[in-house]
Formats: sequence, C-alpha cells, structure tokens
Amino acid sequence: MGEAASYLKSRDSFLSGADTPRAFLERCLDVVSRRESEIKAFAYLDADGARRAADAATERYRQGKPLSPVDGMPVGIKDVFDTSDMPTEMGSRLFAGRRPTDDAAHVAALRQSGAIILGKTVTSQFAVAGNGPTRNPLNLERSPGETSSGSAAAVAAGMVPVATGSQARGSILKPASFCGIYGIKPTRGALNRWGTLWPAKSYDHLGALARSLDDLWAVLWQIGQVAGGDPGHPGLFGEAAPPPLHPLRHVAVLRTAGWDLMTAEASARFETYLQRLQSAGVKVSRHGDDKDLAAFEESARAVPSIWLRIAAYENRWPLESFRRRGAELLAPELVALFDKTSAIDIPGYRSALAERAELSAAYDALATKYDAFITLAAEGPASPFPKSGSSAFHELATIVGVPAISVPALETESMPLGVQLIGRRHADYALIGQARDAMRHSNAQKAA
Amino acid sequence: MGEAASYLKSRDSFLSGADTPRAFLERCLDVVSRRESEIKAFAYLDADGARRAADAATERYRQGKPLSPVDGMPVGIKDVFDTSDMPTEMGSRLFAGRRPTDDAAHVAALRQSGAIILGKTVTSQFAVAGNGPTRNPLNLERSPGETSSGSAAAVAAGMVPVATGSQARGSILKPASFCGIYGIKPTRGALNRWGTLWPAKSYDHLGALARSLDDLWAVLWQIGQVAGGDPGHPGLFGEAAPPPLHPLRHVAVLRTAGWDLMTAEASARFETYLQRLQSAGVKVSRHGDDKDLAAFEESARAVPSIWLRIAAYENRWPLESFRRRGAELLAPELVALFDKTSAIDIPGYRSALAERAELSAAYDALATKYDAFITLAAEGPASPFPKSGSSAFHELATIVGVPAISVPALETESMPLGVQLIGRRHADYALIGQARDAMRHSNAQKAA
Repeated sequence: MGEAASYLKSRDSFLSGADTPRAFLERCLDVVSRRESEIKAFAYLDADGARRAADAATERYRQGKPLSPVDGMPVGIKDVFDTSDMPTEMGSRLFAGRRPTDDAAHVAALRQSGAIILGKTVTSQFAVAGNGPTRNPLNLERSPGETSSGSAAAVAAGMVPVATGSQARGSILKPASFCGIYGIKPTRGALNRWGTLWPAKSYDHLGALARSLDDLWAVLWQIGQVAGGDPGHPGLFGEAAPPPLHPLRHVAVLRTAGWDLMTAEASARFETYLQRLQSAGVKVSRHGDDKDLAAFEESARAVPSIWLRIAAYENRWPLESFRRRGAELLAPELVALFDKTSAIDIPGYRSALAERAELSAAYDALATKYDAFITLAAEGPASPFPKSGSSAFHELATIVGVPAISVPALETESMPLGVQLIGRRHADYALIGQARDAMRHSNAQKAA
Repeated sequence: MGEAASYLKSRDSFLSGADTPRAFLERCLDVVSRRESEIKAFAYLDADGARRAADAATERYRQGKPLSPVDGMPVGIKDVFDTSDMPTEMGSRLFAGRRPTDDAAHVAALRQSGAIILGKTVTSQFAVAGNGPTRNPLNLERSPGETSSGSAAAVAAGMVPVATGSQARGSILKPASFCGIYGIKPTRGALNRWGTLWPAKSYDHLGALARSLDDLWAVLWQIGQVAGGDPGHPGLFGEAAPPPLHPLRHVAVLRTAGWDLMTAEASARFETYLQRLQSAGVKVSRHGDDKDLAAFEESARAVPSIWLRIAAYENRWPLESFRRRGAELLAPELVALFDKTSAIDIPGYRSALAERAELSAAYDALATKYDAFITLAAEGPASPFPKSGSSAFHELATIVGVPAISVPALETESMPLGVQLIGRRHADYALIGQARDAMRHSNAQKAA
C-alpha cells in the first residue's frame, strides 16, 4: 500500500552508495507532494530541515559511519510531543503557534540517532477527543482512526516509514488497523514520555506505527536505549537486532469489550483466520476451553468502568485549566469527558486503582499459560469520516499496561482489519516476533 | 520568630469582622517591605494582585461564606511550579521571563479555595542545584537551605504563613530546619505535581513549609482534595480537621547517612532531646535494642548510591536538552550531576529501582513496630551563606517515599535545628499530630 520500502532494508544500498537517505527522503516527499493536500496527515512539515538532515545522514553513510540503524530515517512525530524546531499545538487552538523550547525525550533520542524529523502529525485535541481533518489514505471517505490519526495516515500513504503515537485508550492500534499498518503500544513505561503536556498519566503509552516490523522495532529500540523508559520504570527489554520470527504455538482468544460490536463480516474473517492458525498447528484456546480464561474475561467486564474512572480523574488537570481558559475552543467530546470527571471523587479513583492492580495481577498470572492473547484491533473496517469507531477492543491492554500490537493480517469490505496480539508484560521483543508469525497467516493481499 | 500569627487562628476574627484577610495580607506585605531587600525570598511578587484577591476574600468572610479554611491565606509558590499570571523561571536563566499558560494543579487548587498567590519563591536551578540569592531571615550571614530556599525564608520571616516546596532529596526539610519552621514532604504521590517541568520523576515530592501545623495541614488537605494526588497514586489520606495531638509512645532512632556529619553540639542537643522524650514516658529504641532496626540501618547504607543512580538517570532528560541549549547558563553543580548521569546505564538504573523496592518493603515492615522514626533534619545549624549543607539525613525517606516532617524543636549555636520524624506510608495526618507532640518536648524558645 505504501510506496516507500522498509527503511532498514535500504541500509545496504546506502552503505554501497546505490541509494542514499536523501534519495529515500525525496521519494517520501514525492508522496507528500502528491497526496498531502487530500490526506492532511501533517500539522506541520519541515521539508527543508529534513533535506539538510538527510544530506548529513547521506554523508555519514558515504563514510561508512551511520550513527545507528535509524540514521537517515524520516519519521513523523505525533503533535502532542514537543519539538524544539517546530510548533507543538496538540490539536488545540488553545495552543496555536506554541513553540516548545526543548525536544521531547524520544524526539531528541531519534535526532541524536540520526533520524530525520519530517514533521508533526495531526492528533485529536490533547490526544483525547475532537478529531482532526486527516483522511484515510486507502479511502478518503473513511477515517484513519484516532487519535494518532496523522501518524497512521502518513505511514500508510508512504510519507514516512515510521511515526510515533500515544495510546491512552486505542489511539495507536485502532488507526493502525484502519490504515493497514503495524502499530504497537509497548509495555507501559517502556518508553520515556518526557516532553508532553502531562507525561505522568498512569494509563498512557508512547508507541509507534510502521509499515515494517523491522523499522518499527528499530525505532522503539533506539528510543529505549537513548531516552530510556518513564521514571520509575525499567524501560524496554529486548535486543538490538530485528526480532526474529517467534512462532505462535498456543494463543487464547480474548473476548474483550467490543466483542459484541464486531461486524458480521469482521467476525467471519477473524473466525477464518483462527481456523487457519489451527490448521497450521497453533493451539487456539477459547472461552469454554479454560476456566481461568473465562474467569479473567468475567473480571475484565469491569474494564470500561475502570478506564473511565481513571481517565476522567487523571484528566481533571489540565482539562480544568483548559476549560477555564476557553471552553469554546475545546471539542464538545472533551467538555463531555470533563463533565464526567466531576462525578469521579477520590474514593472512586482509589477503587479504580485497586481494581486495576488486581486485574493486572490476574492478567500476568493467566499470561503464563499462553504465548499471547488474540483478538481484533477494531470492530470492522475504517469508519466513514469523520467517525472514528470504538476503542472497546483496546481498553483492556491499555489499563493492564501490557504490550499490544495491531497486525494488518485481515481484510473486510475492501479495507484492512488488524489482528490484535496482546503479550506478556515486558515481552515486547517477543511480541513483535509473534506479529511476524501472525502475518504469515494473513489473507490480506500484501504481507510485510 | 515570624511576625504573622497562624492564619487558621485568625479565621474567627475574620468571621466576626474584628480582622480581615486584607489586613492580614497588609501585615505580611509590611514584613516584605521591611525585609525582602535583604532576604530575597521572592523571584516574583504580585502585591497588587494579592490585594485584589484579599479584598474578594474579605468580602466572602463578611458574608459568612469563605470558600475553604485557606480562603484569604497568602501563600508563596516555589518557582518550579507554573503560574498562569506570573513568570516561572525555575531558577534558570534558560527560562528567563517564561510565562506558562496554565497554573500548576496545586496552584489552581489553592486559588480555587480562595488562597492568595502572593508570589513565586526563589529556588535552586530546576530544584536540583545552583543556589539562589536568598538569605536566612534569622541570620543574614547564613543560608536558608536549599532548594526550597525562598519558601523557607518567606515563611520564617513572616511574609507568608505557608509556602509550597518540592523535595527530591532534602529540599523541604533541610530549609525548614535551617529556618526554624515546619516543613513536610508527604507520602510520595499524595499531592498532584502537574504543572512542573518533569512531574513524572519517581523520587520527587510536592510539599509545604509553615510556621503552624494547623496552617500546614490546611494547605495540604485543600490541595489533596481539589487537585488530588499524582496519577496512579491514591492521594492524601486524613481528615479535614487540624490533626489532633498524636502522642508518641514508641519511636526508633534511625541512624541515616549523615549521622557522622553531625556537629558535636547538634549531637548533644539531640541526645538531650531523646532523654527528655524518655523522661516523659516515650519508649526510645536504638540500634542495639532491635536487631530488625539494626538490619534495616545496614540495608539503608545503600541509600546514597540508590539515590544517585535514580536521580542521575531520571535527570538525563531534560538536563541533556538544557546542556545542549546553553551549558554556560547552567550551574556547575548541575553540569557535574549531568556528567555523572552518563555513567549510569539502563542496567544500573534497573538495579537501583529493584533495590529501592526492596528497601521500601523493608521500611514498611519495620514501621509497623514503631509510631515513627526519629533523627535530625540537618547535621547542624544553617550553613554560612552560600553553602547549603548536606542532604544526607533526607535521602532515606525521599527514596522510600514515606512522609517526613522537620519540627523546629531544637536550637544550636543560637540557630534552630529540626528534629525529623519519619512516619508510616500514607500516615501523613498522624505524622502531623506526632509533630505536635514532638514540639511539646522542645527546648527551643518558642513552640508553635
């Protein structure tokens, strides 16, 4: 679907001189010039700065001294993360023209590793609600998914091989599913969120979207090595090398909230996919096969309530401030969320934290029985623009804080549909290897 | 030592009309006009705005409808926390003239409760290192202690009854000890840190300094109720009413790092104090009396190393950014800390996190045996300006994340010396009641 090839696969040609990061960038910019006016993936784009950075990278490859595997890679940065050389408006007119003084930690880490910050990608207001103008590159009548909408669209169109995103509900995996690319939300805390408005939210994640699993891992790894994880967290585990294929042997189908929202066709496609897995020798456990699984699914019915209480309470600040400064500039959905927050008191928040801790422990225990959990990454194909679908499939992994990835393995109504794999805590590296295996069983036209 | 009385004790006169918040403020401003030029407690002061706010509070009391116990209370805000109507420079020329768009959560909470933000108090650069110009109000040749230096000096001088502070090492309790006031670092996470540069640091605390325990608790409680705690934390426990006296029955003398730094006179004063406690019927356990205590003290010898590894690693961002923008504008001590950070790698940080978790569990277990732990809040009296003394007495409670308070119970070399009480996790309310009891055994000239 995207024009540009995997960046990591181009590195040999960069080193041999057959290709250059500057030429790679120009191919990306060519897609931008042809499609950006209709897709609107970027809130801000710095082609000149990118060209200068690409020339510097080209020179480093010429000398045989690239700074890192991502040296010269054009990346998009979700516009909730600060950049010292570009505005950071967080999708909000309250912050129109805002110029941060410093790069977010992950942006600085990528720059320091030679990556090229091509621009800031469109986000919903504060990555919470109030969708941007971005269209789905595969079908302009459809949404790219929210809230990392610009990142997903830019990657899917081939404007950049990788873009960063954040997920506090379904903001990485759902757009990845809608746009037919990979999107990962690593273990909570694995990647440093410094340089965003409220980096301390206890249920938010920094992650990334990409067309290739190699590129995806290279970016995560580089951020994890240079910027580290969130304060108090041990950071990203794994190895520098691209994760090898990690065969799925035993997966559990997890009926998360959202199960009842699936379209009939999505449900049928998923069922066929599970049967293909079984035919290939993968053991697939379901609700009725394991009483622990069934019990966990029962406990997980509290997830939407836990999510809402935690999100509402933790968003009181800064939403309270924003509303005071200009409620009329906020999306109605944001104001509605704020209204819900007033109903959440301290005891309600405390009970939600306790329920989350209990559910997380139950997840970790159950996860020892399986390689991974499997479900969908959306209830169906990309919604008609500007609707953005439900995040019901994502709240569980988000609340529990374990890694989850959307794999573009299915198609429905001529649009992509992601299979979601949810892994063990800190097993991000293995999860990407498992995603490689999950993609082998794809019925989508193109496998990565 | 301060001219202004406890604010909470004035509320009856406000309600009766015998006194007004505006008159209270004028008494504070009178101290400011007489002493600020020599003390330099404030980085920014807004007397006009404060007068307007005091008039509004006066009117509310006249109508018998104050917004909260802190309505009309003038407070100082450590200049690492954002204010929407005053600059927030964090003690750094890198941020000269910086105007945040929003109030920090605790500032907004205090305003919403009717408190008057009189100004921003001087802080060391980023509350880390590089001392400001503030002098100790009790002796201008001496330091007020760092890094909440302006808050401590403003309170001790009587410019405000309460000021907020932050402690990532000893930044609240040491200045409180040097200036002869109360200073509390509540349980980590109990008060919302949103609205500061990196609110996610895993070892930092928002707290406050005051001349009266009633005022101190009223401010903590109001912040905790309106702004809540940090994301993921259950917030501040306790009750709205001023904590009643909580008699100490059994304390353990904790030999933290710093024990060997005590001056001979400080050591003698502390010993006399402990004997007074014993004479009053308080059981005082020491190193030799309890093998669990001795074992914990032995484990706690790792604290300076744990602190340094965690602080160095978590400060890489944003110190890395600041150094890139203007290393010459940073204090040499900050640059030195940065140089140490490069030596801390991911495994070193992970091991520090694991050691902290183990030590915290050991503390919580040991704490069930005692009402509180007792030690000093400084190795001696306030250092000669501009030296700021050691924080060795504070790293343990900071790293373990439990509440600690400095009680101005002692005097040495004609200067105050704080007794430090360290309490059980989440028992902040009881700790303030215990501080009340600890002050009864004071040999200092004035008890609060």
